[in-house]
Amino acid sequence: MKPGALWAFEGIDGCGKSTQLELLREHLERTRPESRPLILREPGGTPVGERLRELLLHTDADELCPDSEVLLLMASRAELVRQRVAPLRAEGRHVLLDRSWYSTVAYQGGGSGVDADYIAQLARRVLGVHEPERVVLLDVSPTEAAARRGTAGQDRIESRGLAYFEAVASAYRDFARAEPQRFVLVNGSLDPQSVHARVLEGLGEHG
Amino acid sequence: MKPGALWAFEGIDGCGKSTQLELLREHLERTRPESRPLILREPGGTPVGERLRELLLHTDADELCPDSEVLLLMASRAELVRQRVAPLRAEGRHVLLDRSWYSTVAYQGGGSGVDADYIAQLARRVLGVHEPERVVLLDVSPTEAAARRGTAGQDRIESRGLAYFEAVASAYRDFARAEPQRFVLVNGSLDPQSVHARVLEGLGEHG
Repeated sequence: MKPGALWAFEGIDGCGKSTQLELLREHLERTRPESRPLILREPGGTPVGERLRELLLHTDADELCPDSEVLLLMASRAELVRQRVAPLRAEGRHVLLDRSWYSTVAYQGGGSGVDADYIAQLARRVLGVHEPERVVLLDVSPTEAAARRGTAGQDRIESRGLAYFEAVASAYRDFARAEPQRFVLVNGSLDPQSVHARVLEGLGEHG
Repeated sequence: MKPGALWAFEGIDGCGKSTQLELLREHLERTRPESRPLILREPGGTPVGERLRELLLHTDADELCPDSEVLLLMASRAELVRQRVAPLRAEGRHVLLDRSWYSTVAYQGGGSGVDADYIAQLARRVLGVHEPERVVLLDVSPTEAAARRGTAGQDRIESRGLAYFEAVASAYRDFARAEPQRFVLVNGSLDPQSVHARVLEGLGEHG
């Protein structure tokens, strides 16, 4: 693992990303303290990004169409890359992303039908060299993820139906198949420690 | 003039757009009441658009790079087109825009150096068929525009220096030269009634 690595976790809401990210961060902190690992989340992570996150997650459904969601997500990402990811990597820190541009292709592309090639093209422009080297996809069924999330305090995206999340999950699995070198596909329905062990194995990390 | 026409006014901040738009709206109201003319402004004009306008105009300078400005402007525009411009035109109303995508190419392209072809490509995707049929460009020198604006309560964009506005004004003149059928170039430094008369003449409108 070279200094300034960039890894991302992906999966539908409720797949267990936050828990697994924190377990991985602790593992890296222990085994490679010099990499000073840290977690950044998308959308958000900068002052403008947090305002856009709020707008994306808590706006009336018909005030924001999927095409606009893509543009706001990319703006939030552009600022995250410029203000946080790039300088942190330059300092040699290991950045772990809670979501990346694959989320936009899966949700707004696979889920909402915006052209996937267009999203990918926009992402490449925004990210430049800062594309995640490894991506962990936590695969859980939409039904199970919905049960984990519960229905209390759902945001705009989370409140979309099961068919929407089926389409998102299917788009994610297509990426993993298309880029086996980059993706680590892990069954996220096991208990957290078993998932963690598989994540480490998939990443070639041995405690 | 066909029902549901779409015209835009362009020019650097302080060129007199708001005054001229209102004079034209009153003229159309008098001469073609059936067109029920109305003015919409960019960025803004929808709930999401107004929040983005606030973010664009009143954010600390280094929190938002020109690439992200382009994305937020396009999102605001996408919502304006979808929620206001398209339905109003479908009702046969004559829509007058206070700025359009040419502003983004002039400011973020000509002024800030974002690739103009990329902006134009993104705009075409966002606008679809809703590209302004006629564009009035009010040309004033950046020095005069700055004097008209004054310095009290300047926003993020207005506070940029004279060289920035020279580059923006020059980009605007390039558009007018490239699309003489669409653009009406008017010297905006005359008194408001003389400017109004020239706008009407350029648009082929005779009181």
